[in-house]
Amino acid sequence: MAGKIRITIWNEFYHEQRLAVVKEIYPEGIHRALADYLENAPDLEIATATLYDPHQGLPDDVIEKTDVLIWWSHLKHEEVSDAIVDKLHRRIIEGAMGAIFLHSASGSKLFKRLMGTTGGGKWREAHEKERLWVLKPGHPIVDGIGEYIELPHEEMYGEPSNIPEPDELIFMSWFEGGEVMRSGNAYTRGKGKVFYFRPGHEEYPTYYNKDVLKVIENAARWVAPLNAPPSITTGNVPSLEKIKGFHRDGHGNRIESV
Amino acid sequence: MAGKIRITIWNEFYHEQRLAVVKEIYPEGIHRALADYLENAPDLEIATATLYDPHQGLPDDVIEKTDVLIWWSHLKHEEVSDAIVDKLHRRIIEGAMGAIFLHSASGSKLFKRLMGTTGGGKWREAHEKERLWVLKPGHPIVDGIGEYIELPHEEMYGEPSNIPEPDELIFMSWFEGGEVMRSGNAYTRGKGKVFYFRPGHEEYPTYYNKDVLKVIENAARWVAPLNAPPSITTGNVPSLEKIKGFHRDGHGNRIESV
Amino acid sequence: MAGKIRITIWNEFYHEQRLAVVKEIYPEGIHRALADYLENAPDLEIATATLYDPHQGLPDDVIEKTDVLIWWSHLKHEEVSDAIVDKLHRRIIEGAMGAIFLHSASGSKLFKRLMGTTGGGKWREAHEKERLWVLKPGHPIVDGIGEYIELPHEEMYGEPSNIPEPDELIFMSWFEGGEVMRSGNAYTRGKGKVFYFRPGHEEYPTYYNKDVLKVIENAARWVAPLNAPPSITTGNVPSLEKIKGFHRDGHGNRIESV
Amino acid sequence: MAGKIRITIWNEFYHEQRLAVVKEIYPEGIHRALADYLENAPDLEIATATLYDPHQGLPDDVIEKTDVLIWWSHLKHEEVSDAIVDKLHRRIIEGAMGAIFLHSASGSKLFKRLMGTTGGGKWREAHEKERLWVLKPGHPIVDGIGEYIELPHEEMYGEPSNIPEPDELIFMSWFEGGEVMRSGNAYTRGKGKVFYFRPGHEEYPTYYNKDVLKVIENAARWVAPLNAPPSITTGNVPSLEKIKGFHRDGHGNRIESV
Repeated sequence: MAGKIRITIWNEFYHEQRLAVVKEIYPEGIHRALADYLENAPDLEIATATLYDPHQGLPDDVIEKTDVLIWWSHLKHEEVSDAIVDKLHRRIIEGAMGAIFLHSASGSKLFKRLMGTTGGGKWREAHEKERLWVLKPGHPIVDGIGEYIELPHEEMYGEPSNIPEPDELIFMSWFEGGEVMRSGNAYTRGKGKVFYFRPGHEEYPTYYNKDVLKVIENAARWVAPLNAPPSITTGNVPSLEKIKGFHRDGHGNRIESV
Repeated sequence: MAGKIRITIWNEFYHEQRLAVVKEIYPEGIHRALADYLENAPDLEIATATLYDPHQGLPDDVIEKTDVLIWWSHLKHEEVSDAIVDKLHRRIIEGAMGAIFLHSASGSKLFKRLMGTTGGGKWREAHEKERLWVLKPGHPIVDGIGEYIELPHEEMYGEPSNIPEPDELIFMSWFEGGEVMRSGNAYTRGKGKVFYFRPGHEEYPTYYNKDVLKVIENAARWVAPLNAPPSITTGNVPSLEKIKGFHRDGHGNRIESV
Repeated sequence: MAGKIRITIWNEFYHEQRLAVVKEIYPEGIHRALADYLENAPDLEIATATLYDPHQGLPDDVIEKTDVLIWWSHLKHEEVSDAIVDKLHRRIIEGAMGAIFLHSASGSKLFKRLMGTTGGGKWREAHEKERLWVLKPGHPIVDGIGEYIELPHEEMYGEPSNIPEPDELIFMSWFEGGEVMRSGNAYTRGKGKVFYFRPGHEEYPTYYNKDVLKVIENAARWVAPLNAPPSITTGNVPSLEKIKGFHRDGHGNRIESV
Repeated sequence: MAGKIRITIWNEFYHEQRLAVVKEIYPEGIHRALADYLENAPDLEIATATLYDPHQGLPDDVIEKTDVLIWWSHLKHEEVSDAIVDKLHRRIIEGAMGAIFLHSASGSKLFKRLMGTTGGGKWREAHEKERLWVLKPGHPIVDGIGEYIELPHEEMYGEPSNIPEPDELIFMSWFEGGEVMRSGNAYTRGKGKVFYFRPGHEEYPTYYNKDVLKVIENAARWVAPLNAPPSITTGNVPSLEKIKGFHRDGHGNRIESV
């Protein structure tokens, strides 16, 4: 990106307004915790949006100014407007925007649309330890991260999960209770880049963890669109080489031509 | 598969009934040309279905007895019932069925749902030569195939295309007019396997080509579900290891427990 | 394979002859424990070989009759003859043979040659539990396996490891002590297939575990060469299409030709 | 990289000094043509080295100051010192250096060591056209590149080739004579990144093509090591979780401990 990367952090913002335990940790919402950190990066420009804002926080002019979408949702996946999902999906495929999906956003309409699977899987709330081990130590998303990230308490998600094989598998989670989970998954869809990052149950202060925030910051730069992406032609294209082709006459019959 | 692999070949069957040039090549439809060949394999059990059959050829009892779905469609993608697409999609994700998508079936509802992208791309009808080069010469899908398959006349599809990076890229097409295309693409979605195979424009006798048929036969065995797939638990699961967890009291507050 | 798959199980066979604890578990060697199980499969033909046999168990006629090589080694990697490694390597690349590497065979000359990395990594002997979670539940290598394989006691290997990203990542290990490891890794090298399977420390009865044995049996079929692999031309090839080329005169100057 | 990326362009520099046709195109060598372009980038610091320099251009202090190695070789692969190859290989695996291999450098000792295969394949000199089609239009290596790069005359390399499946396949070449080739291949080996870029036969002015140069520039940034890579522990590691382990007594017998 030549200028700043314009990031929109979208949050369902449901639990934080209703559950005391969540409100205590994220009094202004998960989106604000993320924004407070990301605003320190001079190359990033941060906006936030929630389900309860007008147009669910994503009117057309916001979508069109978003280079990177960060998405957190859990209970209200189905309330997100299909029309908005369509626009976001198209924007990613066209390479105008990248996206980061956090934790339970694996069940969001947009993520499932991009992945081609149905979501769902194993989970457990048992106040257990998670370690996210780095599998690709040379990848820009883990710049500044050690061998693993440790979170003292997290919700568990477990394999086998039906998300597709990522183009690059960057983190694998170990859980105290006995499971593993693909936890940092990089995908390309069309010209757009997508990163799924597992941690972030709303009842834990995960989004204050320095390593978790650093990964999200790195990922924002990684999914950001190119400065000069190719403009790709679609539809019926002429031949690049001279070949004998044909056209059709008024009856739909083929007539050879050069 | 312990018994025979039960294959359902689904065909839009539109062009063959309306265009003389197509009817001449496939008088009983593309599905019958494929069936005629595949019925020779003693381990395969073949059925066919078309858009114009009752229930679009896919009533529940047919879906439930299909191990491998072979799909050809072009102009009538959008007429296929959403309810049927939902059922087929779920069956693939659950690993009860594999699927092979042929040629323009890349634009079908089901394929786009599985891939997460929007379809579309470059194409050209110019009576040109296609060569499908083998990129993974050890893969079971190319058993019995030489270095490449040559088709004297085919429709061109060209890169860049927005289909996702396959788990395994098995064929790459060379076109006389100057383009290339990922043409034999293997994917896993959930527990199900999916193979996309590019050639097969309705105006050419592609589905009589011995190599093309052999690839479809090989692919049918490759996408077929396992004899004994794992039964995967989902939802809230207990801890495999003893850890200190918690439950909630009547007010939604967490209470620690072992 | 049209006939039986001819398997050669190669074992270093060092510890079993020297350490009481190992001899007690594998009195005739790890190779015999594997052979005893695999000999039950009617489509497999089993031979064994060890470092202490003439020609290190791998004279040319044995190599030339091996479709699948299963390899276990630990302390004596460097004693294996370079000439034998060259022959085995070439046979795999040419697609005449597949290979399965077990446990510490990740440090063998042949495996490192195939992978392009240096081996080495984290390990610990702490009598701890390992769970191998299935990540690709539709893959033929896990046919008949549940969600995970549990081994009550194993040696730990931990990530990050420098083995390359596998073409397919089939198992991920969870260790009681806090680590994870890519544990069932499928690779293609040239026309040959390679599978790395982590468990099998010599001081534990891992190779009597029914699931471990089933995976090795499945993998043997998966890495076995094709019935009819393509015969690939190399070197200077003529043009498939008519193009204006050139040859050289006696002075090395280019002369155009058609 | 916090400071400049230190690039060493290594060239065999054989043909340019001996063949008139090559000398005419690259009078100071391929390395200088590349350097002339790359020196314009303010974030890159360029040095060159050749086979005929003392220590083959790669004494230890040069290796230790190289962040990115660019390698061109053809006829003199085998003359490169094994000791140098060992050092370069280790440096890549450790993530201290990335590498770009150009054209026939696919046959170099270092590239074959990293890939695990034997090199070799189809080739043809017929003055034919090459098009490199972009398969991953969102990848940083193709920033600023259109749908394809066209080279009016190049040497052909053809599939099937025995190089391993890349982690990311970025370019696919189309050749006038009828072949295709994986032409822009990204790999990770250990913590290091490797990019293979096909074009660049010495008898054509390929390394003056703006798109080819731009790809090499982009790739140099992409393979460059991280600012803060994880320092990875290897060898015998203590348990992260409390588990009951054991040590050995003076006789090699295991004694349980906590």
